[in-house]
Amino acid sequence: MSKVLVIHGPNLNLLGTRETEIYGTVTLETINAKLTQMASEANIGIEIFQSNHEGEITDKIQGAKEDADFIIINPAAFTHYSLAIRDAIASVNVPAIEVHLSNVYAREDFRQNSVISPIALGQICGFGAESYYLAFQHLAGLLLSKSE
Amino acid sequence: MSKVLVIHGPNLNLLGTRETEIYGTVTLETINAKLTQMASEANIGIEIFQSNHEGEITDKIQGAKEDADFIIINPAAFTHYSLAIRDAIASVNVPAIEVHLSNVYAREDFRQNSVISPIALGQICGFGAESYYLAFQHLAGLLLSKSE
Amino acid sequence: MSKVLVIHGPNLNLLGTRETEIYGTVTLETINAKLTQMASEANIGIEIFQSNHEGEITDKIQGAKEDADFIIINPAAFTHYSLAIRDAIASVNVPAIEVHLSNVYAREDFRQNSVISPIALGQICGFGAESYYLAFQHLAGLLLSKSE
Amino acid sequence: MSKVLVIHGPNLNLLGTRETEIYGTVTLETINAKLTQMASEANIGIEIFQSNHEGEITDKIQGAKEDADFIIINPAAFTHYSLAIRDAIASVNVPAIEVHLSNVYAREDFRQNSVISPIALGQICGFGAESYYLAFQHLAGLLLSKSE
Amino acid sequence: MSKVLVIHGPNLNLLGTRETEIYGTVTLETINAKLTQMASEANIGIEIFQSNHEGEITDKIQGAKEDADFIIINPAAFTHYSLAIRDAIASVNVPAIEVHLSNVYAREDFRQNSVISPIALGQICGFGAESYYLAFQHLAGLLLSKSE
Amino acid sequence: MSKVLVIHGPNLNLLGTRETEIYGTVTLETINAKLTQMASEANIGIEIFQSNHEGEITDKIQGAKEDADFIIINPAAFTHYSLAIRDAIASVNVPAIEVHLSNVYAREDFRQNSVISPIALGQICGFGAESYYLAFQHLAGLLLSKSE
Amino acid sequence: MSKVLVIHGPNLNLLGTRETEIYGTVTLETINAKLTQMASEANIGIEIFQSNHEGEITDKIQGAKEDADFIIINPAAFTHYSLAIRDAIASVNVPAIEVHLSNVYAREDFRQNSVISPIALGQICGFGAESYYLAFQHLAGLLLSKSE
Amino acid sequence: MSKVLVIHGPNLNLLGTRETEIYGTVTLETINAKLTQMASEANIGIEIFQSNHEGEITDKIQGAKEDADFIIINPAAFTHYSLAIRDAIASVNVPAIEVHLSNVYAREDFRQNSVISPIALGQICGFGAESYYLAFQHLAGLLLSKSE
Amino acid sequence: MSKVLVIHGPNLNLLGTRETEIYGTVTLETINAKLTQMASEANIGIEIFQSNHEGEITDKIQGAKEDADFIIINPAAFTHYSLAIRDAIASVNVPAIEVHLSNVYAREDFRQNSVISPIALGQICGFGAESYYLAFQHLAGLLLSKSE
Amino acid sequence: MSKVLVIHGPNLNLLGTRETEIYGTVTLETINAKLTQMASEANIGIEIFQSNHEGEITDKIQGAKEDADFIIINPAAFTHYSLAIRDAIASVNVPAIEVHLSNVYAREDFRQNSVISPIALGQICGFGAESYYLAFQHLAGLLLSKSE
Amino acid sequence: MSKVLVIHGPNLNLLGTRETEIYGTVTLETINAKLTQMASEANIGIEIFQSNHEGEITDKIQGAKEDADFIIINPAAFTHYSLAIRDAIASVNVPAIEVHLSNVYAREDFRQNSVISPIALGQICGFGAESYYLAFQHLAGLLLSKSE
Amino acid sequence: MSKVLVIHGPNLNLLGTRETEIYGTVTLETINAKLTQMASEANIGIEIFQSNHEGEITDKIQGAKEDADFIIINPAAFTHYSLAIRDAIASVNVPAIEVHLSNVYAREDFRQNSVISPIALGQICGFGAESYYLAFQHLAGLLLSKSE
Repeated sequence: MSKVLVIHGPNLNLLGTRETEIYGTVTLETINAKLTQMASEANIGIEIFQSNHEGEITDKIQGAKEDADFIIINPAAFTHYSLAIRDAIASVNVPAIEVHLSNVYAREDFRQNSVISPIALGQICGFGAESYYLAFQHLAGLLLSKSE
Repeated sequence: MSKVLVIHGPNLNLLGTRETEIYGTVTLETINAKLTQMASEANIGIEIFQSNHEGEITDKIQGAKEDADFIIINPAAFTHYSLAIRDAIASVNVPAIEVHLSNVYAREDFRQNSVISPIALGQICGFGAESYYLAFQHLAGLLLSKSE
Repeated sequence: MSKVLVIHGPNLNLLGTRETEIYGTVTLETINAKLTQMASEANIGIEIFQSNHEGEITDKIQGAKEDADFIIINPAAFTHYSLAIRDAIASVNVPAIEVHLSNVYAREDFRQNSVISPIALGQICGFGAESYYLAFQHLAGLLLSKSE
Repeated sequence: MSKVLVIHGPNLNLLGTRETEIYGTVTLETINAKLTQMASEANIGIEIFQSNHEGEITDKIQGAKEDADFIIINPAAFTHYSLAIRDAIASVNVPAIEVHLSNVYAREDFRQNSVISPIALGQICGFGAESYYLAFQHLAGLLLSKSE
Repeated sequence: MSKVLVIHGPNLNLLGTRETEIYGTVTLETINAKLTQMASEANIGIEIFQSNHEGEITDKIQGAKEDADFIIINPAAFTHYSLAIRDAIASVNVPAIEVHLSNVYAREDFRQNSVISPIALGQICGFGAESYYLAFQHLAGLLLSKSE
Repeated sequence: MSKVLVIHGPNLNLLGTRETEIYGTVTLETINAKLTQMASEANIGIEIFQSNHEGEITDKIQGAKEDADFIIINPAAFTHYSLAIRDAIASVNVPAIEVHLSNVYAREDFRQNSVISPIALGQICGFGAESYYLAFQHLAGLLLSKSE
Repeated sequence: MSKVLVIHGPNLNLLGTRETEIYGTVTLETINAKLTQMASEANIGIEIFQSNHEGEITDKIQGAKEDADFIIINPAAFTHYSLAIRDAIASVNVPAIEVHLSNVYAREDFRQNSVISPIALGQICGFGAESYYLAFQHLAGLLLSKSE
Repeated sequence: MSKVLVIHGPNLNLLGTRETEIYGTVTLETINAKLTQMASEANIGIEIFQSNHEGEITDKIQGAKEDADFIIINPAAFTHYSLAIRDAIASVNVPAIEVHLSNVYAREDFRQNSVISPIALGQICGFGAESYYLAFQHLAGLLLSKSE
Repeated sequence: MSKVLVIHGPNLNLLGTRETEIYGTVTLETINAKLTQMASEANIGIEIFQSNHEGEITDKIQGAKEDADFIIINPAAFTHYSLAIRDAIASVNVPAIEVHLSNVYAREDFRQNSVISPIALGQICGFGAESYYLAFQHLAGLLLSKSE
Repeated sequence: MSKVLVIHGPNLNLLGTRETEIYGTVTLETINAKLTQMASEANIGIEIFQSNHEGEITDKIQGAKEDADFIIINPAAFTHYSLAIRDAIASVNVPAIEVHLSNVYAREDFRQNSVISPIALGQICGFGAESYYLAFQHLAGLLLSKSE
Repeated sequence: MSKVLVIHGPNLNLLGTRETEIYGTVTLETINAKLTQMASEANIGIEIFQSNHEGEITDKIQGAKEDADFIIINPAAFTHYSLAIRDAIASVNVPAIEVHLSNVYAREDFRQNSVISPIALGQICGFGAESYYLAFQHLAGLLLSKSE
Repeated sequence: MSKVLVIHGPNLNLLGTRETEIYGTVTLETINAKLTQMASEANIGIEIFQSNHEGEITDKIQGAKEDADFIIINPAAFTHYSLAIRDAIASVNVPAIEVHLSNVYAREDFRQNSVISPIALGQICGFGAESYYLAFQHLAGLLLSKSE
């Protein structure tokens, strides 16, 4: 069975309570439940991980080398400076999709540069929780077409 | 019946023959056929438009004001300088999703700035033809949830 | 009889409906009617032209070489990148006044650089429809003083 | 009776003698006389003030809070760095029009950035003495429409 | 009882031994003792936390959401790049004062940009240990005026 | 008896009436009265000076060489360009604290660079009138510890 | 028979009348006649196209894919921003030579950056009408050596 | 009799006491006495003026139009931002030499840009009081050669 | 006995498997074994530490204050932004050599700025595993010459 | 008889052996022989000079003042920084054509700025050895038309 | 027998007398003697060359094509602008190590950019004379492993 | 007897013939004769050197270490990039005055940055040949005061 690793970056554990005018009221639990259900329906393994620690996320991505076929990552604040996470993704050579809840291009200047994007497969941003689901749908489709 | 306007920017009519190492071999006809089928299945109206002329795209977007509920736009080269298209989208106030076939963030520097993104709903890039389909899926989901 | 060519750039045809918090509710028809009336009263010929196509505006300006004594132009989005329009104005050597409805200097950064200004006679911005009328008044005064 | 405060920035007292290839031969006295006559005809009060001292201009603008309905200001060299004048205008909340004799956008680079523009109502530049008269005409029109 | 969370960023545990020509010889223990005494006298709860780990500081700030009324933070090196800490403070919506021992504006260029400042209540820098005490005094005053 | 010189920069005389959404409704008179009272209680001499004239502030700071032990200065708009005031403070070699009512780092870009900070003792900003009082408290503490 | 497509960008139709101090008095008709004669003598097919419309030039270049062996293009004002034309040339994979009448490197700053150059075969500028003829000579030589 | 106007900018009245490690211990009185003596010996009139007020210096320069044949100016801090002084010098069209006591190119970055230099006759810096004397010698030589 | 602390930054634990076209196939174990052997032969103590956590590396460097005579550090991705690690090295005042496996100056732009270099003793890059060994040789030589 | 001076900049003596993937396999001897033959056929004198020494090239250009009617120069690496060569060409006032073998605009960033171009007659680049021949053809044509 | 070419750039002949607080008191003779001895012991040929002339260094590097297996170069001031030397090294395709005596990253801004580094094998800086010796050791090791 | 070394940079040998609208018609011979006469009158030794070769100028400056008490240098084009000359001057530790004939600050942008200025004693520019004479006068004065 294929497996997807979903990584939520710093402060996403506060989702639904944090700056709701930007991020909406959906909680991370809701997103995780939905993703788990989608994975189950698609018969794909899923591991979900949230951390405020750059090092823990780096460790987790390194583990994906053995353990996962795809990564969906919302790097949150780390998007803009964590070259360690970038290098980790490049190192393990597991295809990764970068997602963002908000349209980062309509926000502060510093949120418009991603050090992750150049080594990601692609980017989906601005659709709230749907950003994750669309990423999952894409991966599920890829896995389906591979298995066919 | 809701309606989606799909806009393909300059040179996309050459898709499948143009720089296939970057854009792949899928043709625009294939993408359009798939989108039309998805629209049909979702019972959503669809209009598809390709042009190499900034003015024609601007005109078409203005028409969407009366005529469409959503826009999916791959502005191609216009992404990086067409403030006229940006202003048109902002003017008609129809939600627009920006899509790109390639991961523009892994390419030349000038392709990494979009004048469209700040006024788009969101952005999907790097998934080839799937970038369009994911955008359509999102819109279809939105329309479905609205009609419920 | 002297003649003024008035050029409205892209998306100005939507005036009065577009982003009314920025541009107000006056329509382009109202502005054009007022300008036509002012021209009639001043016994000056007038041609008014709106287009979303950079090429059409360039063509029209080229025609002014034979056909007009002054240009009033609101280049709208083209203000910030259309070197073709800039070169056209410089080529025909017809004095041109650049007008803007809004105070572009109080808006987005990208709206604060005009490629047209350096070759214009002058600039009037921030007075809504009055920006056009003031430009016309100036030209009418110039023509009057010339004819005396 | 409404009142307009006209402020001439540094070195404008030399007008007509100074760099006449740029500024022309009209003197400040001529401009002031014309503005006074226009004010008289329009039944609007007028106060005219020239200073080479940033502080005196700041003081004068502060006085406008009680004393004037509109400001017409040619900040001259202060245009490009006097944040004190900018803050004064913002503080008193009296609508101000920024005027320039020359087309500053066709001159040295440093003359193309105005710290005043973002808090002005609008800007008129490039028409010589007419820049002031057009500003006055606009204000007279505004006052007329208000009193109706 | 109100509570203040005091956060010391990386390398501040070496205070008094580290680069004493810049930071002086006061140790962190001395600062903490003084702050604890001030809190006791003002009848305000206090928690003091030092870490070299960005993730631990982020976690601690998140905890403040439930647990603290004010934050005093010296982000030290994190001042200049930790968007994760910035987002954490913005997320929990607890008023935070940024303090620095040295006058960062008189030091290396890179120390003059703070990613924390824009979301802080205010900033106090350059007074050595007093920077913390002044911040505390301000908070104590605020709490006092609230309780009255 | 020690003496503190308090300098208020341009437009601060309008405090309480000017842009109250940014600066609050406290007037300069209130701040001055409070500072005078604090000085009296601490048995410290105080001179308070407000001017919209850069030259007058420069003169006043020069006078501090003979006449004051500390300076508290809110340079307001001059913060960002008055190298004359910077040089005056550096010349007289009297320790100066820079204060701001608002958190300048949360405002316009141009307000985030201070030419004064590098030669100040420290900076306090964002606490409204309290910014001044905290500065005074720090100085009073310094004087007390010196006299002991 | 081999074929060359010659493209003249915006405002070049005014050549000989426009800013003759920069561009000289040779008209586009003269250049086209000379190029046609050179083609005839070299037994090479030639198509010459001028447009002020970026879209038309893009369309024309796309047509070259089937229809031409070489492109000579003077992009004029489009040199500096038309990524659509750049992408078109890159798409059709027909070798293109960029020519300019004037030495663009001795003119305004903005004329010194070409978005076309990186994907052109080479560049010839500064020789007036000769820039075109030298380009043609080069292509004729290439075709001759190929046919040998 | 020819006349030279010598202008000392802000804080130069403190010379000899101010930052003596940079500016040395010579006082302004000494410099002025020496210049007066040199003028007397050369039979040239001299007026010496020091001010911390940009406006007063601007006024004084304007007066030079009628009253002086040459200007020697040490703009001090105003060197780097006073466009009003620059415009005044350009307006009166009296040849001006810019002098600095210290080698400004060996100091802070901001001291290395002069807004005055482009309109000065020349610049002398780094020789302490000698910078003034060399400037005077040059002017005296010029006047001598003129009178011959 | 002297002691060297060797620190490997994030993702170096994957060495030999990660992006082998850049980093080669030598594993970290091989490097560590070689360094250990070199230390043993030179009679120098050695501690080797790898972490993906900036905080752990900061902690470890702080420990070096008591515990090590030299540091050899390959900060990997942290090279470019970890001011916390920079400050830690500066704080403990233990001489540190910065090493890189690849020639970072021949790679992406962002890899060409090191925040560590200014406070390092020196830098060795581009020699693969040899970069470490050369650093060790230098330290061994230093220790030898000291002990002589 | 007219004379052309051909100058080859540094490292061009290695042509044909150096980086042949960029510069091709044609040697400088071949180019020189061809240019000599062209000169002979056109009855134009020719001198060819290669040097790796900026000073020797400067000397040679100075000699052209007396000795040559045209210069063809491939400044190679000196293109990007040798202001001495630029000034030499400007000094002798002999028309010079700048040539490059490769399309410098498709290479490293630093190769895209030429300090020579602004004072050259024109530029030809990207055609390999043909760049020289086209330059010669242009000059031969000019000389022919002059002699007629 | 393998051969190493050692190149010392401008002003290194003054080593030991020049700015000894930066470069130390070791003379170039000492360094050369040590390198010669190391070469002798390693049975490697060595040629050592110092010049203040960019052209001579370029010539010497070109000679290495036939004559040397490795280059050790301290380009000194040429590090920061000599593209001619860069191109020479790239042309001859002999592996080169860039060395610096001082830690250039702790010095003036302009010393932190090397035009040589991107085409060097690697860089060693900050170890004084040892920078050369470490480079030699690395090359000796490489040659040894090759000969095995 | 003290000695002054006068260095003229590249292309100054053409003085009086080169771009006379900028540099005037005085020849280098005239300047040298005048300087020799001044030296003779002041009983100061003088050596004058002109070269278009950066290396020769560097060599000459190095010789000044033993041989000269002062340097007067007009680095001409080398002003803007020759770090080798800068380092040579810094190395020999002989006081140097930088002179320019023209006011470089009123010319092209690239002429406004000097890499020499930061290590020069001072700078004199804009006075034509007088720039040299003023520099000599200053040195003569210095030597006189030393010998007294």
